[in-house]
Amino acid sequence: MADPSRIEADYLIETGFDPRAAAEAMAGEQSSGTFLPVPGETAALKARAAARVEAIAVLETIAAPSLPGARLPADGGAIRRAFVTLSWPLDNLGPSLPNLVATVAGNLFELGQFSGLRLRDLRLPAAFAAANPGPRFGIEGTRRLAGVFARPLIGTIVKPSVGLSPAETASLVRTLCRAGIDFIKDDELQADGPHCPFAERVRAVMTVIEDEAARSGKKVMFAFNLTGEVDEMRRRHDLVRESGGTAVMASLNSVGVAGFLALSRHSALPLHAHRNGWGALSRHPLLGWSYVAWQKIWRLAGADHLHVNGLANKFSESDESVIASARACLTPLFEAAPALAMPVFSSGQTVHQVPATWAALGSADLIFAAGGGVMAHPGGPAEGVAALRAAWDCAMAGTPLAAAARTRPALAAALEMAR
Amino acid sequence: MADPSRIEADYLIETGFDPRAAAEAMAGEQSSGTFLPVPGETAALKARAAARVEAIAVLETIAAPSLPGARLPADGGAIRRAFVTLSWPLDNLGPSLPNLVATVAGNLFELGQFSGLRLRDLRLPAAFAAANPGPRFGIEGTRRLAGVFARPLIGTIVKPSVGLSPAETASLVRTLCRAGIDFIKDDELQADGPHCPFAERVRAVMTVIEDEAARSGKKVMFAFNLTGEVDEMRRRHDLVRESGGTAVMASLNSVGVAGFLALSRHSALPLHAHRNGWGALSRHPLLGWSYVAWQKIWRLAGADHLHVNGLANKFSESDESVIASARACLTPLFEAAPALAMPVFSSGQTVHQVPATWAALGSADLIFAAGGGVMAHPGGPAEGVAALRAAWDCAMAGTPLAAAARTRPALAAALEMAR
Repeated sequence: MADPSRIEADYLIETGFDPRAAAEAMAGEQSSGTFLPVPGETAALKARAAARVEAIAVLETIAAPSLPGARLPADGGAIRRAFVTLSWPLDNLGPSLPNLVATVAGNLFELGQFSGLRLRDLRLPAAFAAANPGPRFGIEGTRRLAGVFARPLIGTIVKPSVGLSPAETASLVRTLCRAGIDFIKDDELQADGPHCPFAERVRAVMTVIEDEAARSGKKVMFAFNLTGEVDEMRRRHDLVRESGGTAVMASLNSVGVAGFLALSRHSALPLHAHRNGWGALSRHPLLGWSYVAWQKIWRLAGADHLHVNGLANKFSESDESVIASARACLTPLFEAAPALAMPVFSSGQTVHQVPATWAALGSADLIFAAGGGVMAHPGGPAEGVAALRAAWDCAMAGTPLAAAARTRPALAAALEMAR
Repeated sequence: MADPSRIEADYLIETGFDPRAAAEAMAGEQSSGTFLPVPGETAALKARAAARVEAIAVLETIAAPSLPGARLPADGGAIRRAFVTLSWPLDNLGPSLPNLVATVAGNLFELGQFSGLRLRDLRLPAAFAAANPGPRFGIEGTRRLAGVFARPLIGTIVKPSVGLSPAETASLVRTLCRAGIDFIKDDELQADGPHCPFAERVRAVMTVIEDEAARSGKKVMFAFNLTGEVDEMRRRHDLVRESGGTAVMASLNSVGVAGFLALSRHSALPLHAHRNGWGALSRHPLLGWSYVAWQKIWRLAGADHLHVNGLANKFSESDESVIASARACLTPLFEAAPALAMPVFSSGQTVHQVPATWAALGSADLIFAAGGGVMAHPGGPAEGVAALRAAWDCAMAGTPLAAAARTRPALAAALEMAR
């Protein structure tokens, strides 16, 4: 990064106008520019506050605009795509994450010059690391609390997503503890509804987890979904901590950056960050945010675990995108403050995806969460967990699963399950 | 609404699968369903917690999928659009806005069955009105504090967006007060950066506003942009209130639902809600949120003023969409708790848009914010404000602007300005 006192953001744009002029309009809209000239925008003010176009690379010409509503020039020029990098003086806003969002991703998406505009990446001054909490636990803290080292945490989700009572949830958790699971999370639909009040669920589940830990020596990490208002989240966090719990979960797009920061600054537990709603921000390739840019905001805000979907998932995301997301979580933000988050693989994950996940990521610093992959194993959840553990052992040792399955019946049975 | 204890949401979907089966998959994903059958999803649990498909209307067949990444059936069926209504038991989540977002707009956008999925509207049990703050001031409270009745508030934005010092901002505010403006807002890029610290700006601006109010009897409403972390926003709100200020502003997509609720529950001032970033959630017509659904969340959370863009705006939004948004803000949420918010028209607004805005909306309960339309008037800002006031007087009286301009030189000059 050229100037460490400036914020840089990379975009993919699509426009019928001259790409450089369009990029200058972006810089103007997001800093000192105005639609009509006003007396106050002096040369000194521009030098102090204007955003700059740092780089532009024009890409292909396309036949039709990707998004509706764009204005086109009167002379009907070609519609072109381009990579654009803008920069801002840090002093326009200071190292404030909510204001960073307004600056790099505010009105831009609505600008009439563009039939496509997507935020691809961000580079931030180190002041952001100093001013924001970052992950307090990250990979090492999570491993220490879960007692799992040098391999992925094998996780699962309480299913059905919603509808179980606290006692039914606790009963399922006992089964999962006895099955040897490392990590369990609430579904994002289960928070504090009258069917399953948060406090009752925490007490019932933690009684089981402490009981099973006393029996086996292994304390399963359970991420309780405390998504709600700020004061509710703080109270719920305190209850989990007082009950001996070792993680909490929040839905990022439900609480927002300021909401999550308020939780994070209060928290003494790993924060499991669920990305539901993410598709609205990202599903169109010419609109919204790339995960690479987006996850930087949440890591700085304190996310210890970040959902990245999974290979061959049940959703619409490509494997390439999933791996890029997971790699991003494992790439240091700053040399002095890496702020790594543990990527969470989920969505239809089974033993089948394990070798490719390892091959593509080359890291075991992840949570591998399987719902049906654990619960629907024909030998029961203990065999489901054993199969996933075996699949990771084999993948990391370079042994093909089919070969290893000859001596490992749990893995063999898992390989025969429908994908 | 059929059952007042259920939450209802309307969607536009696009799928290559049978639309009814796809709608059932949505309902399953967002309630008790699982990818693979699990033992816990009993008939009793389904009866208690399952989401239901309440209505489905199949629309046109289209040639190509709108969004990439969708799975298609092996037999290559037609890609169809449909309107779908789902419902959920309130007791799955309770009247919690963050959890409502996760329920009606969570993982749905990523589901592989869909090449388009957009949330169109929401109908909520009255429990949401009881449990959430709603607008404390709304239209009547805003009019009372601004001293403006039976016509729109004429507003403007501090421009340049960012770069002015507190003293320069206050100097501009003095000019605007003397020009007869009703309402001023910070730009969304100006919050608490080192160039223009929030506290210094508030003190400098409120000194001017109080001074001018003592002189003229008219106290201009200034919405200070306090966007930031929760504790910062609360402190900044308190400073504005102690300094005699009558409004604060936050960027909704920067602070999030839990962040905004934390401000709102603390606030004793009208909350001016800026929607920057909205384009990422809405610009593609087959993805994300309609404003009609989205604004309901923020009104319940406490927004008193909500940005809706403006007619013939500088962005990509159609006039039809702008008017639908403004009408939504002025439509009661519940009979006993209308929770109306004042729509804020902005973006390249001048006298030219006034007659059509009045004709389309039929209400003067709005803030009409013009930047260049005030500051760039050839006769200066006082004539800019006079022209906008005259344009609204004429429009509401049914007088064509051109006719009225013969005796009103400020309006005549404004009509001659470039659009």
